[in-house]
Amino acid sequence: MEAAIMDEALQSRVINLLADAPRGDPRRASYLLAALAHDLPPGCVVVAVVDPGVGTARDGLIVEAGGRLYVGPDNGLLSRVVDQAPDSEVWRIDWQPPRLSNTFHGRDLFAPVAGMLSTGQAVPRSELRRTDMVGVDWPGQLPEVLYIDRFGNAMTGLRADTVEAGAQLQVAGNLVSGAATYGDVRPGAALWYANSCGLIEIAVNQGTAAEQFGLTVGVEVQVLAGNPG
Amino acid sequence: MEAAIMDEALQSRVINLLADAPRGDPRRASYLLAALAHDLPPGCVVVAVVDPGVGTARDGLIVEAGGRLYVGPDNGLLSRVVDQAPDSEVWRIDWQPPRLSNTFHGRDLFAPVAGMLSTGQAVPRSELRRTDMVGVDWPGQLPEVLYIDRFGNAMTGLRADTVEAGAQLQVAGNLVSGAATYGDVRPGAALWYANSCGLIEIAVNQGTAAEQFGLTVGVEVQVLAGNPG
Amino acid sequence: MEAAIMDEALQSRVINLLADAPRGDPRRASYLLAALAHDLPPGCVVVAVVDPGVGTARDGLIVEAGGRLYVGPDNGLLSRVVDQAPDSEVWRIDWQPPRLSNTFHGRDLFAPVAGMLSTGQAVPRSELRRTDMVGVDWPGQLPEVLYIDRFGNAMTGLRADTVEAGAQLQVAGNLVSGAATYGDVRPGAALWYANSCGLIEIAVNQGTAAEQFGLTVGVEVQVLAGNPG
Repeated sequence: MEAAIMDEALQSRVINLLADAPRGDPRRASYLLAALAHDLPPGCVVVAVVDPGVGTARDGLIVEAGGRLYVGPDNGLLSRVVDQAPDSEVWRIDWQPPRLSNTFHGRDLFAPVAGMLSTGQAVPRSELRRTDMVGVDWPGQLPEVLYIDRFGNAMTGLRADTVEAGAQLQVAGNLVSGAATYGDVRPGAALWYANSCGLIEIAVNQGTAAEQFGLTVGVEVQVLAGNPG
Repeated sequence: MEAAIMDEALQSRVINLLADAPRGDPRRASYLLAALAHDLPPGCVVVAVVDPGVGTARDGLIVEAGGRLYVGPDNGLLSRVVDQAPDSEVWRIDWQPPRLSNTFHGRDLFAPVAGMLSTGQAVPRSELRRTDMVGVDWPGQLPEVLYIDRFGNAMTGLRADTVEAGAQLQVAGNLVSGAATYGDVRPGAALWYANSCGLIEIAVNQGTAAEQFGLTVGVEVQVLAGNPG
Repeated sequence: MEAAIMDEALQSRVINLLADAPRGDPRRASYLLAALAHDLPPGCVVVAVVDPGVGTARDGLIVEAGGRLYVGPDNGLLSRVVDQAPDSEVWRIDWQPPRLSNTFHGRDLFAPVAGMLSTGQAVPRSELRRTDMVGVDWPGQLPEVLYIDRFGNAMTGLRADTVEAGAQLQVAGNLVSGAATYGDVRPGAALWYANSCGLIEIAVNQGTAAEQFGLTVGVEVQVLAGNPG
């Protein structure tokens, strides 16, 4: 029961991220999904839908990457999870639902496919070369704000393991130093930190970074080397 | 597991719609519920609560319509699902919970009744003539904005199967043409379309119709015949 | 199925309250949690996380109170459920997860501990005297706005069973009289009432008290004796 609740909490976080933010922006959402993927239970099936092109000619995909299955549109959203899993496999969905609305493939196509996958049913599909996926050529990191959460914290597309602890971030004309957690700086002060899914995030202790610095999705973030010694 | 997730997603959509919007407005909410009902799993039990009169003398109802059970207040909210199912049946809830707050009958009355129904327990009730339900005389469609979703799309109370594909909608001083899906118009352009639950909806491709046109719940929508040829 | 939905709805309400509001404010959140605790199923495990000090030296706690288990940070959040249950017991969590982020102990520490508790696994812990908990000396009630819900209703930290029905509340320069439920006053009029979890709440029938009176979290509420006769 509680274990199920845990898993659902994680899934719910992903689902909310991908449904809400970055709204209508599969490119930025792909970096979030890839960062969150590590925390999803092995063997799970993820329905990922950020799909501004819903109802147009774009394909639907099934992806197996890192021991998890993903179902979603071929618009780049799944490209980052493929990129970070060398042994991943990609298929085009050939199955057609009995009824397909033009604007809600999450309900009509992707969720039923996920249902079939998770119950071991065969889903009509054809293999796709990774190089034929949309987004396969996107960069490994995005030096910008990807997403702003409900606390006003700004998640970036920079992987924390690529930024030195002493570095400073320049964002919207401000310099921000790193710290391990909110409480390590005084109330009202800003910090960057390695967030819980391994990305660089900017926050204000007991405050709202997005408001304080006027951050919005897409604002550029620059990494400056820290002062030695 | 995934099948359960699917159902929960649908139920969650309904629950969110009915809890959030149109807030405190069982009349408009009744059209949304009726439109969403077709996508709910047969045999399911729906707890529907838009209930500004909670704690006053209004009754609670059990409705069987289209193979589904509904539980909620007798304020018109369930009248549209009854209206669209000729063989529906309506009962007044006579069961009384051990504790009944004045402001949260969703928790204290309707959810427990739904629990009893779904586990096959008898619920004290008395038959009600459909004509004695609140809202039984409401019109079949509402030519206005019913609900604005988190993308700023404006759902109307017009059934898509009653509007010709070539028709234009006049809303808040704007003329909007129909299309199958968002991507069929250029970014920033408006469209109306048959939404995923069969109602006419107004959106802007990669934009926010509610902001662009100043739409709010209750704004009138007029259907104009399209230009022939 | 429906019974499970009921329980989840309750848990979800608690989880949402504690995640969202009062944001970053474990003191006010503790009064909400204590008020909601009575409606949680006996034997359940509650993960409660309002945790601005996440990642600093503060401890994690397991609390047994009123037949329920609670898991969360030692920042006062659990102090009110302990205060209202004379036979409650408190332990410090000694278990360490394989991976502990600095900013998401809800995922990394508290949820796994709850999972172990709910499946009967032993969790390394050490007894703590109640008097060593943070918040043990906080007052029994808070005469102020604790939380504003999505309807704009303002929940206070006053227990309804301590306020006479004829009393008036003074809040932000306004006098508000009591009523049993929204529909007992005319549309647009304000009322205070005993809310569904036993706290005094201020609302406007078919309106938004927070906007109408400019209420925000922390606004003081004063109880004035009603006019006799």
